[in-house]
Amino acid sequence: MSAAPPQLFRPDARTADSLRPIRITPGFIAMAEGSVLIEAGNTRVLCNASVEQGVPTWLRNSGRGWVTAEYGMLPRATLTRSPREAERGKIGGRTHEIQRLIGRSLRSVVDMKALGERTIILDCDVLQADGGTRTAAITGASVALAIALQKLVAAGTLKTSPLRQMVAATSVGIVDGNVLLDLCYEEDSRATVDMNVVMLASGGLVETQATAEKDSYSRAQLNAMLDYAEKGIHELFAAQQSALAAGF
Amino acid sequence: MSAAPPQLFRPDARTADSLRPIRITPGFIAMAEGSVLIEAGNTRVLCNASVEQGVPTWLRNSGRGWVTAEYGMLPRATLTRSPREAERGKIGGRTHEIQRLIGRSLRSVVDMKALGERTIILDCDVLQADGGTRTAAITGASVALAIALQKLVAAGTLKTSPLRQMVAATSVGIVDGNVLLDLCYEEDSRATVDMNVVMLASGGLVETQATAEKDSYSRAQLNAMLDYAEKGIHELFAAQQSALAAGF
Amino acid sequence: MSAAPPQLFRPDARTADSLRPIRITPGFIAMAEGSVLIEAGNTRVLCNASVEQGVPTWLRNSGRGWVTAEYGMLPRATLTRSPREAERGKIGGRTHEIQRLIGRSLRSVVDMKALGERTIILDCDVLQADGGTRTAAITGASVALAIALQKLVAAGTLKTSPLRQMVAATSVGIVDGNVLLDLCYEEDSRATVDMNVVMLASGGLVETQATAEKDSYSRAQLNAMLDYAEKGIHELFAAQQSALAAGF
Amino acid sequence: MSAAPPQLFRPDARTADSLRPIRITPGFIAMAEGSVLIEAGNTRVLCNASVEQGVPTWLRNSGRGWVTAEYGMLPRATLTRSPREAERGKIGGRTHEIQRLIGRSLRSVVDMKALGERTIILDCDVLQADGGTRTAAITGASVALAIALQKLVAAGTLKTSPLRQMVAATSVGIVDGNVLLDLCYEEDSRATVDMNVVMLASGGLVETQATAEKDSYSRAQLNAMLDYAEKGIHELFAAQQSALAAGF
Amino acid sequence: MSAAPPQLFRPDARTADSLRPIRITPGFIAMAEGSVLIEAGNTRVLCNASVEQGVPTWLRNSGRGWVTAEYGMLPRATLTRSPREAERGKIGGRTHEIQRLIGRSLRSVVDMKALGERTIILDCDVLQADGGTRTAAITGASVALAIALQKLVAAGTLKTSPLRQMVAATSVGIVDGNVLLDLCYEEDSRATVDMNVVMLASGGLVETQATAEKDSYSRAQLNAMLDYAEKGIHELFAAQQSALAAGF
Amino acid sequence: MSAAPPQLFRPDARTADSLRPIRITPGFIAMAEGSVLIEAGNTRVLCNASVEQGVPTWLRNSGRGWVTAEYGMLPRATLTRSPREAERGKIGGRTHEIQRLIGRSLRSVVDMKALGERTIILDCDVLQADGGTRTAAITGASVALAIALQKLVAAGTLKTSPLRQMVAATSVGIVDGNVLLDLCYEEDSRATVDMNVVMLASGGLVETQATAEKDSYSRAQLNAMLDYAEKGIHELFAAQQSALAAGF
Repeated sequence: MSAAPPQLFRPDARTADSLRPIRITPGFIAMAEGSVLIEAGNTRVLCNASVEQGVPTWLRNSGRGWVTAEYGMLPRATLTRSPREAERGKIGGRTHEIQRLIGRSLRSVVDMKALGERTIILDCDVLQADGGTRTAAITGASVALAIALQKLVAAGTLKTSPLRQMVAATSVGIVDGNVLLDLCYEEDSRATVDMNVVMLASGGLVETQATAEKDSYSRAQLNAMLDYAEKGIHELFAAQQSALAAGF
Repeated sequence: MSAAPPQLFRPDARTADSLRPIRITPGFIAMAEGSVLIEAGNTRVLCNASVEQGVPTWLRNSGRGWVTAEYGMLPRATLTRSPREAERGKIGGRTHEIQRLIGRSLRSVVDMKALGERTIILDCDVLQADGGTRTAAITGASVALAIALQKLVAAGTLKTSPLRQMVAATSVGIVDGNVLLDLCYEEDSRATVDMNVVMLASGGLVETQATAEKDSYSRAQLNAMLDYAEKGIHELFAAQQSALAAGF
Repeated sequence: MSAAPPQLFRPDARTADSLRPIRITPGFIAMAEGSVLIEAGNTRVLCNASVEQGVPTWLRNSGRGWVTAEYGMLPRATLTRSPREAERGKIGGRTHEIQRLIGRSLRSVVDMKALGERTIILDCDVLQADGGTRTAAITGASVALAIALQKLVAAGTLKTSPLRQMVAATSVGIVDGNVLLDLCYEEDSRATVDMNVVMLASGGLVETQATAEKDSYSRAQLNAMLDYAEKGIHELFAAQQSALAAGF
Repeated sequence: MSAAPPQLFRPDARTADSLRPIRITPGFIAMAEGSVLIEAGNTRVLCNASVEQGVPTWLRNSGRGWVTAEYGMLPRATLTRSPREAERGKIGGRTHEIQRLIGRSLRSVVDMKALGERTIILDCDVLQADGGTRTAAITGASVALAIALQKLVAAGTLKTSPLRQMVAATSVGIVDGNVLLDLCYEEDSRATVDMNVVMLASGGLVETQATAEKDSYSRAQLNAMLDYAEKGIHELFAAQQSALAAGF
Repeated sequence: MSAAPPQLFRPDARTADSLRPIRITPGFIAMAEGSVLIEAGNTRVLCNASVEQGVPTWLRNSGRGWVTAEYGMLPRATLTRSPREAERGKIGGRTHEIQRLIGRSLRSVVDMKALGERTIILDCDVLQADGGTRTAAITGASVALAIALQKLVAAGTLKTSPLRQMVAATSVGIVDGNVLLDLCYEEDSRATVDMNVVMLASGGLVETQATAEKDSYSRAQLNAMLDYAEKGIHELFAAQQSALAAGF
Repeated sequence: MSAAPPQLFRPDARTADSLRPIRITPGFIAMAEGSVLIEAGNTRVLCNASVEQGVPTWLRNSGRGWVTAEYGMLPRATLTRSPREAERGKIGGRTHEIQRLIGRSLRSVVDMKALGERTIILDCDVLQADGGTRTAAITGASVALAIALQKLVAAGTLKTSPLRQMVAATSVGIVDGNVLLDLCYEEDSRATVDMNVVMLASGGLVETQATAEKDSYSRAQLNAMLDYAEKGIHELFAAQQSALAAGF
């Protein structure tokens, strides 16, 4: 795909294969077992990990743990205020879809046998939304989860951390025929194809979802998007390591 | 991927790259503008297209139409009865995810300007579930939609059908390390990777969603799954054409 | 009531005291313990019986079983699409009324002591609605129940079937001053009185509900309606026996 | 049916064909257009009629009015407290069934054309429940409705009352093989058959609903129950007239 | 505060520091353990106390009891009918606020250790609303609670009543610059400040809530309102004692 | 009350009449018309003001505006995770009570005529909770509101700001017999009396709510609490002015 990608069309003058500036702040909230504020450009997501005793009914007496996620967006995370889901009395389809994706992604890196009959809930709340909130949530929640599990080890509750490896995610899309990495909202709303990629530190893929919004895409385009996503996710793994190394 | 796929491990003795027997019965229900019963092996989905005047608020006075989908599963479509969503008082996350997928897929083939300010609702109700209900729903709903639009043309309401082309979908996955096309429930529950592919008759992709359930997958495996899916979907397009040719 | 009933005014040219063609297909769904598709003219109801261990709280440790019913109508069972109750987030009053009627009717023929602490749920889902869906549901569910109980006997779970006898139901009404048996939708919408009768094979009545829609009715008219209903239900018992005799 | 009914088995020593003492207090609430407290033995139901401008959507610009009912039971109307439906967040099936019955019964006596595009809502709230609450609600709501309509005439809003005649209702059942009129709770819980009859002052029937709880019933028993009910309802019409004559 | 309060401006010609006529009728409902109809002018609230075995989860095995309240208003308690909360499917904010206030007030006078693991629910249902329903509910519920606890003592279930003292409440406000006791609806709707005061028989305060509706208030005005409220509540304690002395 | 309050018993060694450190950060979120992060010790509340065209139905064509508030708490704002209200499908009573209080408080300082037919929604979301979240929300929302209104003036939409003055709030309580200002969670959970005071910059009171949790309080104690609250709120007004002076 495009050896020398054009450079001047992105709102923030990034090259086509650049991530937005990423910032991961561990310990943002003092109350949670693991807490991280992740910022990708103007997107800001607060990821809190809670460790609870017990597991859902279908896992009782299995000796296995469970990891799940909940996702929310503050009403004024967006330029136009959106009604509060608690007021509307139900979780919307988009929220359901996103929290299922986050949950599955995080479960892929935890050894449930080693976790034992505990549940870890990852609350991902979007304080400000500028595109890529679900992938930022996965990348941030992975760090919050790592912290919470290290604390269980530090407290002597677990011998070793059940976290097998880190997981991270980014978005990629096609705008005006160009493949672009890590779309901001303005790009996302013009994209003809929108893709989310979730990858393990080992390089294995756990989720790839590519959706044509206005036009279909070819196998070649799918591969070009995957190339960009892999590049970006490697940078995210580095950011996660820096955050964890900084202590919390 | 595997030049000579092993042939004897599937519950119904299919080869790895074979679809289950597909049957599309147009006119199953007399009440709807377009009605199709689609059967893929033991999976049976009733797809009904309803044409209504008017569009959602955000499209009013735009001159453009809308296509949406609702998905349901009868309580006893499955081996173990599942509670009725109407009784529980809310649509679950899985249902939301599926009906959003069906809606997006069908919208990708309709010229909304040519449709005008009408809404087409595709009700996809699963009478019996044996894996692949969401992809069967897309393939069947595409036919129901085509019929409903042809009737609008026949009635003189529209000059030409706003349907640009057909869309179809299938599932593919990795079971015991083998890529298999069109998984039945028993295979699906053992799969380590599960993928849904939605494709246009023109060959363009509109949705590719690959999810690792227990293990991650490589780029090579992703490509192998896409190869099988494309082969299967071409057969589905043929089945759709036969059904439409039979008249209704 | 009217010795020689006029014969030519019904949409399908039936005589006043004739049922619509009745068809009962056992084994329509392979997944359920008992499954029947019942068709009365254009009305089509899928009746599935599920056997579950355990009983509601108030019956625990009583040694007695329970039989209950749920009723649903697919959105496009009717000429004009009606919104899905799961989307609206609640069961409507009409649905509640109908599923309570079906449940009571079926409970009247089961020896709960002989059933033991099991619950049988009868899911009655209307695929196409042309009047008389609740009475068709009772007649069909009675067969689905009989099949499910026979399977419990065949499997050695129960020594003898707890089904004491069959139950069946039909509607009757007054249209243009004439008593008519088994109203189709078009007749039902013009009827001044609408009556549902549920009867045991022994001839005992378990439910009679006669509602004046636009005009009241006399005791003589009530008796005339009951005469027609009894005649029709005897034919339904025969149809049930044929279906059961055919094996499943 | 039984020429000389046995007399000593009823909790309050009534004869088999006697109503409980009936008391109708008009003007119980000052706020409503029509307000009545009806007491049948220990059963006490407050029936308030509200007149509102406008009609439901489907009647707009039809020139016709609408009459509807809502039914509620205070949590401690019964010996054992029952949870508040507002707390549970939904109306139960029994409540739905009852308010539909009351609404239909009252609509049968109103000339909707003469009412014009107004809606009358009859709120029937049970303060104390000792059997027969739904039939007491119909009998009381009929008086509340009459009062509200007379006030519209008195105010010059309507020239004549759109009330064509009064409607009243009672229950009847079979206990220990005996037909009994107007069952109290203790009798109702032992009854094998329970019947509600709604009748017009002209003698026409508008609803007859007979339900076998534990045993079926014959045509002869149905007729005996109707005889008792008709006798009782004639006494209720007299009580209604006395209440209306007393002024309000 | 104003030695000689002006006397002629109140709708019912009361002096500024007068309560409306108060009437407390014990035993209004026969079904409840404690039942009281309290009337303050045209405001009428039915207060029923139910005693149930067991306590909420967080109190299990604590040996302590619990007291809670639910508040409802009949749709036609007001001049304009308000929709039924059960129909709307949720409790409104005002209702929540009121029932929390009633519950807290009643809990302040019960020795939970002496009550043991029992729950007392106070259902306060407004039959007619003319201002001050929440304070009337507290005053009436206190009597219903006293009766229910005395019955537990009379039955030998408890040795002595866990009721430490009575609690009562009234409203006070500022209308046209004048402090007025016990506002009726017409006064309440014109008030610039609205205050509720809940006091123990011992003179201790348990709740004081003063809300400026249109204008703020000074410390001096707050004190004047408290003076009036204390005077009124002393009269309410006397009315409670008369009601209890009358027997039930 | 206590001339020289003891100084060493508070968890953070504050004197009895000291506020916790207060920090107000304007412009925390870029998306909202007015955005403020307010921190009072460990309590952190994000207050966003949204300006929307139009008003609720009952104000249409009145020429008047409306101000309302919504309050939420992130699941992990607290030491123990609490379930998300959107998941539970309803707003709890405590949330209702708080958002009604915030809304009333903010409405008391806005000239609705000068605002015109616009609605300002104040979203107050608690990121971390350590007592006093509702009063922090009022103090912060007042600043967010001021900013949003100044922007309407700066944009030329309004000639002058409809904000008449600032409003602020704090809590005060009685712990171990001592009156304490601005309780943290640990103090709040041991308090026998808990009071919230909302005051205008002019010194007028708009809300005073004092609740006895375990013991009642005297008029003298109420006055002592008000003295402390007034002192604290004057400091809050200064903090608000500093934040506004810093520009945004």
